[in-house]
Amino acid sequence: MINKAGEEMVVYLVGAGPGDPELITLKAIKVLEKADVVIYDRLANEEILKHAPQAKLIYVGKKAGEHYKSQDEINQILLNEAKNNDVVVRLKGGDPFVFGRGGEEVLTLKQENIDIETIPGVTSSIGVPTTVGLPVTHRGVATSFTVVTGHEDPTKTEKQVKWDYTADTIIVLMGIGQIKENTEEMMKYRDPKTPACVIESGTLPDERIVMGTLGDIAQKDIKSPAILIVGNVVDVFKEMTSKKLVY
Amino acid sequence: MINKAGEEMVVYLVGAGPGDPELITLKAIKVLEKADVVIYDRLANEEILKHAPQAKLIYVGKKAGEHYKSQDEINQILLNEAKNNDVVVRLKGGDPFVFGRGGEEVLTLKQENIDIETIPGVTSSIGVPTTVGLPVTHRGVATSFTVVTGHEDPTKTEKQVKWDYTADTIIVLMGIGQIKENTEEMMKYRDPKTPACVIESGTLPDERIVMGTLGDIAQKDIKSPAILIVGNVVDVFKEMTSKKLVY
Repeated sequence: MINKAGEEMVVYLVGAGPGDPELITLKAIKVLEKADVVIYDRLANEEILKHAPQAKLIYVGKKAGEHYKSQDEINQILLNEAKNNDVVVRLKGGDPFVFGRGGEEVLTLKQENIDIETIPGVTSSIGVPTTVGLPVTHRGVATSFTVVTGHEDPTKTEKQVKWDYTADTIIVLMGIGQIKENTEEMMKYRDPKTPACVIESGTLPDERIVMGTLGDIAQKDIKSPAILIVGNVVDVFKEMTSKKLVY
Repeated sequence: MINKAGEEMVVYLVGAGPGDPELITLKAIKVLEKADVVIYDRLANEEILKHAPQAKLIYVGKKAGEHYKSQDEINQILLNEAKNNDVVVRLKGGDPFVFGRGGEEVLTLKQENIDIETIPGVTSSIGVPTTVGLPVTHRGVATSFTVVTGHEDPTKTEKQVKWDYTADTIIVLMGIGQIKENTEEMMKYRDPKTPACVIESGTLPDERIVMGTLGDIAQKDIKSPAILIVGNVVDVFKEMTSKKLVY
C-alpha cells in the first residue's frame, strides 16, 4: 500500500528496552528521530520519547482506573496512522515480540498490505538480570533458560502454561500478582529449596532485589513490576554481587 | 581496589548486541566513548569499535588456525588492564550473560576486589528472530520460550543439556555443527513435524532464512553462525513475513 508521500508504507515496530532510558538501541533512536507519529504503551520511562521531539505522540497503554484501548482499537489506530503519515513508529517496552502482542499487530497491518520493520530491544527478561549482575547462564550451572509469562489470559479455559519447564533457569515476567499460585505449580517439578530471587523495578532508580527460595519467595514483601528468577544461578549471583540484597 | 587514578576500580562488562552495529545500546556507546581499553571477543561487526576511538584495543577471541586465549589468560589480561587504566571495557557479542562466560570473569575480578558494572545487550537469541520478524512468543501459540546452547563442552562426561524442554518455542544458539544430533535428541520429546527454521548471519547483510521442520531441518544447506528456532511460531512467521525464505 502507498502512503501520503507516495511511498510503500512501512510501520516500525520498535523495542524500547527494559526501563533505563539509555538501554535503547541506536537503531531505535534513529527511527524515533524521523518519526511523524509514535504510538506507545506504558513505558517504564517516558524520557525515551524525547528522541522524537517533532512526532505526534499517541498513548495506548493502560491507565489506572480508566478505560484503556483494546487490541482491536490499537490495530485500528495503527492502520489509520500508517495511511496518513510517512513514518509511523509503534514503540513497546522491552522487545516487541516478548509478550508484547507485536505479532498480532504485524498480522493486522499485513492484511492491508502494510509492511512492518521490526527493531529488537533489550528484553527485560534478560536485561534486568544482567543489569543487576545476575547471569541467566553460567558454565557448569546453567546451560539453558526459559522465559515465561506469569500472567496468563484468565479467560482461557485450558491453561497453556504448565510450569513443568526443565531448563536450568526459569525467568517469570509479569507474575507478581500470581506468584503464590505460580511457585506452587513450579514446586510440583522443582525442589522448594531451589534458590530464587525477585528484581523489582529493574534498571530503574528504585530497583530492589529480594532473595529467597522457590518455597518461600511468595511470602516476601514484593511489589510489581518485578521479575522472578528461579535456579542455581541465583546462588552464583550471591557470590558475585556487591549490591544490597533484601532477605 | 584503587586504580591508577586513585578511584575505586570498576570494569564495565558490556553487551555489543547481535551483529548489526546499530543494535548496540546508548549506554554501551557512552562507556565505549570514555574507555581507555576495550578487551573484545570476535564480534559480528567490528564497526562497533569506532565508538572507542582513543582506546587501546585488545582482541581475545578465536582466530581460525591460530592459538587463542584461554579463559584464564583472558582473566589475567582483565586484571592487569583494570589495575593500570581508569576505564576498562570488556565487550562481548549479544548479552554478556547469555553463554558469554561473563560470570566467570566477574568472579575473577571480584576475588581481587574489583567491581564490575554490567550493561546488557540485545541477545542474538531474541534479537535475531525479532529482526527478521519472527515472534518468539505469540498469543494462543507460544507463552514461553527456552534458549539453550547447541554446543555443549565436549569434555563433559555427563551432558547437562537434555533436550526435553517443554517451552512452546525452543531457540538453539551455536548449534549448527551439532544440528543433526541436537534435532534427533529433541525428536524424542517433540513431533518431527514441528515447524523449524534457521536464521543464518542474523541482522547482517548476508542474512538467510531456511525453513523446514524439526525432522528435516538438519538435512538443509546451512552455514554458521546461525540460530535454530523450533515451534509453531515458525508458522506464524510464515504468515507474517514478506522476506525471501529458502526451502
